[in-house]
Amino acid sequence: MESKKISIAILGASGYTGAELIRLLLAHPNANISVLTGDSKAGKHIGEVYPHLRFKNLPKLVSIEQVEFSGIDLVFCCLPHGTTQPIIAALPRHLRIIDLSADFRLHDVKSYAKWYGHEHQAVELQKNAVYGLTEQARDKIKTARLVANPGCYPTGSSLALMPLLASGLINSENIIIDSKSGVTGAGRSAKQDNLFTEINDGMKAYGISSHRHAPEIEQNLSSSCNKEITVTFTPHLIPMNRGILSTIYVHLSAGKSAADLRAKLIEVYDKERFVHIMPEGIAPSTHEVRGTNDCHISVFSDRIAGKAILVAAIDNLVKGASGQAIQNMNVMFGFPENTGLELTAVFP
Amino acid sequence: MESKKISIAILGASGYTGAELIRLLLAHPNANISVLTGDSKAGKHIGEVYPHLRFKNLPKLVSIEQVEFSGIDLVFCCLPHGTTQPIIAALPRHLRIIDLSADFRLHDVKSYAKWYGHEHQAVELQKNAVYGLTEQARDKIKTARLVANPGCYPTGSSLALMPLLASGLINSENIIIDSKSGVTGAGRSAKQDNLFTEINDGMKAYGISSHRHAPEIEQNLSSSCNKEITVTFTPHLIPMNRGILSTIYVHLSAGKSAADLRAKLIEVYDKERFVHIMPEGIAPSTHEVRGTNDCHISVFSDRIAGKAILVAAIDNLVKGASGQAIQNMNVMFGFPENTGLELTAVFP
Amino acid sequence: MESKKISIAILGASGYTGAELIRLLLAHPNANISVLTGDSKAGKHIGEVYPHLRFKNLPKLVSIEQVEFSGIDLVFCCLPHGTTQPIIAALPRHLRIIDLSADFRLHDVKSYAKWYGHEHQAVELQKNAVYGLTEQARDKIKTARLVANPGCYPTGSSLALMPLLASGLINSENIIIDSKSGVTGAGRSAKQDNLFTEINDGMKAYGISSHRHAPEIEQNLSSSCNKEITVTFTPHLIPMNRGILSTIYVHLSAGKSAADLRAKLIEVYDKERFVHIMPEGIAPSTHEVRGTNDCHISVFSDRIAGKAILVAAIDNLVKGASGQAIQNMNVMFGFPENTGLELTAVFP
Amino acid sequence: MESKKISIAILGASGYTGAELIRLLLAHPNANISVLTGDSKAGKHIGEVYPHLRFKNLPKLVSIEQVEFSGIDLVFCCLPHGTTQPIIAALPRHLRIIDLSADFRLHDVKSYAKWYGHEHQAVELQKNAVYGLTEQARDKIKTARLVANPGCYPTGSSLALMPLLASGLINSENIIIDSKSGVTGAGRSAKQDNLFTEINDGMKAYGISSHRHAPEIEQNLSSSCNKEITVTFTPHLIPMNRGILSTIYVHLSAGKSAADLRAKLIEVYDKERFVHIMPEGIAPSTHEVRGTNDCHISVFSDRIAGKAILVAAIDNLVKGASGQAIQNMNVMFGFPENTGLELTAVFP
Repeated sequence: MESKKISIAILGASGYTGAELIRLLLAHPNANISVLTGDSKAGKHIGEVYPHLRFKNLPKLVSIEQVEFSGIDLVFCCLPHGTTQPIIAALPRHLRIIDLSADFRLHDVKSYAKWYGHEHQAVELQKNAVYGLTEQARDKIKTARLVANPGCYPTGSSLALMPLLASGLINSENIIIDSKSGVTGAGRSAKQDNLFTEINDGMKAYGISSHRHAPEIEQNLSSSCNKEITVTFTPHLIPMNRGILSTIYVHLSAGKSAADLRAKLIEVYDKERFVHIMPEGIAPSTHEVRGTNDCHISVFSDRIAGKAILVAAIDNLVKGASGQAIQNMNVMFGFPENTGLELTAVFP
Repeated sequence: MESKKISIAILGASGYTGAELIRLLLAHPNANISVLTGDSKAGKHIGEVYPHLRFKNLPKLVSIEQVEFSGIDLVFCCLPHGTTQPIIAALPRHLRIIDLSADFRLHDVKSYAKWYGHEHQAVELQKNAVYGLTEQARDKIKTARLVANPGCYPTGSSLALMPLLASGLINSENIIIDSKSGVTGAGRSAKQDNLFTEINDGMKAYGISSHRHAPEIEQNLSSSCNKEITVTFTPHLIPMNRGILSTIYVHLSAGKSAADLRAKLIEVYDKERFVHIMPEGIAPSTHEVRGTNDCHISVFSDRIAGKAILVAAIDNLVKGASGQAIQNMNVMFGFPENTGLELTAVFP
Repeated sequence: MESKKISIAILGASGYTGAELIRLLLAHPNANISVLTGDSKAGKHIGEVYPHLRFKNLPKLVSIEQVEFSGIDLVFCCLPHGTTQPIIAALPRHLRIIDLSADFRLHDVKSYAKWYGHEHQAVELQKNAVYGLTEQARDKIKTARLVANPGCYPTGSSLALMPLLASGLINSENIIIDSKSGVTGAGRSAKQDNLFTEINDGMKAYGISSHRHAPEIEQNLSSSCNKEITVTFTPHLIPMNRGILSTIYVHLSAGKSAADLRAKLIEVYDKERFVHIMPEGIAPSTHEVRGTNDCHISVFSDRIAGKAILVAAIDNLVKGASGQAIQNMNVMFGFPENTGLELTAVFP
Repeated sequence: MESKKISIAILGASGYTGAELIRLLLAHPNANISVLTGDSKAGKHIGEVYPHLRFKNLPKLVSIEQVEFSGIDLVFCCLPHGTTQPIIAALPRHLRIIDLSADFRLHDVKSYAKWYGHEHQAVELQKNAVYGLTEQARDKIKTARLVANPGCYPTGSSLALMPLLASGLINSENIIIDSKSGVTGAGRSAKQDNLFTEINDGMKAYGISSHRHAPEIEQNLSSSCNKEITVTFTPHLIPMNRGILSTIYVHLSAGKSAADLRAKLIEVYDKERFVHIMPEGIAPSTHEVRGTNDCHISVFSDRIAGKAILVAAIDNLVKGASGQAIQNMNVMFGFPENTGLELTAVFP
């Protein structure tokens, strides 16, 4: 198994999730990066697009049309939301695909149309897409052809909440997720709002009651307890590159305590390599997961009886995107799940 | 009135709130900074402690014992929490005092003892201290001898919530305040946790269910509606110098809408110089209040019926500390309330 | 004099220097901001472009064509380099103009053509433009119709070097200026290179041996000693919003010492309000001039005999742009030079 | 060879270089971290000191006195400068040692006494210590018992300059090194100057003409050309965690050009895994080496004939400290030099 190498194409390698895939795959013993596409940059070496990859042995960027897929085993699709469906639909059938866009995350194509503003263009594919929150869907991922890699905000909050809802320890109403994200979540396209000078030394909320990750979170939570769940979700933009910290407010089920929640999470994630429950009384920082595929979760009693506060921290580019994608790749191809992902946070 | 100048002593001038008072008072037409104390730095020019004040015409730092208070009109007390009570108790009776510490904020000395870990040492003074949230207590502040200047977290959240509770527009239960603060809130003392390298490019929650500003917020909210209110309050530390953004989750009273809340806040703050209600659909950023005494507040409908989300932004060192202190000074001494506080945010 | 108010138009108010002019002019007792132009934003309130100006009483943005200049006394021109010449050439003759672009800085139109890639389009105007490094050209500025406001890099380095060259204390050869700038110097246009994520937590040199401020610095230095001077100039981009720190390496004239340099600078700037020579052995930080019109300069002996090191710090948006522009306005209109510019740094 | 594992003790693991050693050694196939010492933290798990190491399988911190060295092969010494000599002198003879402090870097004990303020306390050991700039001293390092790991500033500048001096391409006089460092270089001890609030959004020069890395740089440069060299060296503190960028100004030898310098560096470092010469006209950023053991070097012509500008970028904690230490370990123990160091920069 160790020596088996799969041949990988990354479509849309010039975005941040593409670059992060490259960083992680370069250290993965079973991965060969065979193809990188970047339509507007076709013909360039990736090092001209990402100086930190300048001295790496990597293929040149090509356009998707130029790709010979016959020797490829796995495609990571890092294209912008909304552009991905026809491209994936047109890929040869032998390919397995991990899509890092939002295009195949929502099972309900009506919900997709509502939140993304256009009809879904690959409804048949959507039916067979597996939502790739690895810890929750490992078995389906193993055999999936198309994995819809989870969004950054949904990953941390779902890992914290799904086991609690599944076990009935918390109320399915009144869940509030207050999330704080680093700026890489906004991607690499040049926007005035994301200039250093506009972000540095200040912060704001955005997408209040209207962020597209809300229905994705709700789909996850609802599926965990077979109940329609609506959450309050507020994202914030923090002057840091990486990291999402979600502070989650929940109502306990009758007779339950924060300690029960903590015990459940410890039980559920006991064998997991990437999800860690913090010692009692200690809250995680995004610093301690920077550059890693880890999710650190804390549980606190509120001062108000019957309520609890959860805090979940991830690196949005790793567990919230490219790291989880590779975790899914490991599951799909039978590699030990932590292969290439035994990372220590880059701190300080 | 214009030409009247009052003589001011700042006790504990070597902390950040002291330095910020100096910055603002240097531009105040009715203020003479006559005395600066800094016990461990006595004998130095403040410019040796704060390089940005090096070329300002300011008195040398002295110890409190060295101060001749007879010519002083007003004392700003910027000493550490817990050390202030005996010092203020010993001040000559002619002095008016604005205390920026937490020492006189909690009316209930039992609550003080519980949250601060020792008995209150100036109970008689406490009885007459006026809590100085200017917009809410202007009349009492006018004649107060001792004003307890509000804490940074309580200022923004109380300004947003008090009118809504007073008018019965929101439920007094289930109020959640998720606050994000710049690092100046932690003061200038040398702590490993607050090193640049430990804070930069990451964030965390802290003081979950245990922060001392919770009882202060609750005192404010309770007083606004004559009901005992307990809130869920979670502070976070953000890699920025200044600013507090509080995202506040409330349940609406029956039949009320976010628009009602917004209308009420507009009505209440219509004439206020420093509190501004944002246009519908626009959330404030801490950038836009940096360096100013302003508080910007937004109201949003939640996607869940019966709930709303408020966002309040201030500069913790200005409206959350030294600016509000000067606003209170203006009220106490009959200067127009905006004197010296007509500031434009330093952006970018 | 106090009560006299001049009527001001800011052309190109939607850039950072425009916004900074507004911040400073709002606090200037002799200034009325009458006109703001912003071609692509015409019709909007400036608060839609700059949230920190949302609640200020300011005129709407208009296009330059819409401006009625008859009641205007002074125009600040904040338009992009290269676009300014025809616009200024077409302005009514009664207007006095301070141009913050580079368009009229280089006296030699051949040098302009070489560095800016096109012929100068207002050669006659150029002849009468006064280069507005206030401390060096006060008398000419008084009566100038058109002032070319200095660039950010040239301001600090020229203030440090010109008196030393003029007095023959340093060698006119082997001058090296290693400058570090905040990101506001790059303006507000949306470029991938200036995204938060690309700048944060790292730094680089740029424009090595090719930056357009080199000939401007050389023009200043040459004029101070009537000798053709060429300098080595390397700018760097630092993850901070504001500030330029220039570290300058010079060879001393025979028999001269760093102490001689320091004494000369103290003598020359003794009466100046904005240029301060640091105490011996203390280097300035950009923190201590943030938001102010000040320039702080230090002189150090090198360990190598015959050499010295100067360090000069300014805020690039204030003394390096909009603050110096207002200083020039004060000179032109006979207001005390420090009017509206008695600022204390916003620290921390 | 692959399977050989050496047993490692890290003395002073609670500093940043200790933590970085742990991060890198955890991914090193030939390393067992057997002992971690941290005197004031003895008895704690390293995860209590460094949250990002909380869930790693690592030994508890012990005091040096508690260490049983018999099974240890290699000691990394990360103790503070000045405290290291007696401790290393007392270590059992079978141990090989890589010292990350400055204690054994200066061959000349008189120079040590002058710069560090006390007599060297292990003069005999000093005689046999090998200065571990790997690319320059590989052969000696192989057999060394004690390697003095280079300082952060000397590493980048020496790699750029030594081959040029050795080959006579540049003048040995008039070398100026203007270096910009991230704040991790200042270590983890709690100092007011290094608080986030004091560093963020600004910068300064420090240690002008007096930094202890100057004699170390001079020792390296002098040794490369058998000539006594003195340099001008100015360090600066930049608001970023990691990275050193050195901008180096040199005079060319008669008839030589920047292209000659570049060609020489390409030739010298052609086979090196960690030192890369940038394409012509492109300057490195610290972003592109963050978290890696790489050194990126550029050469530019100055506009002034006969001069050139070099730019060298490293991560001060990796190639400037712990990464180079592991590179030296690999050389000492016969592992391929890049083992455990094939890292991709963590960008963005």
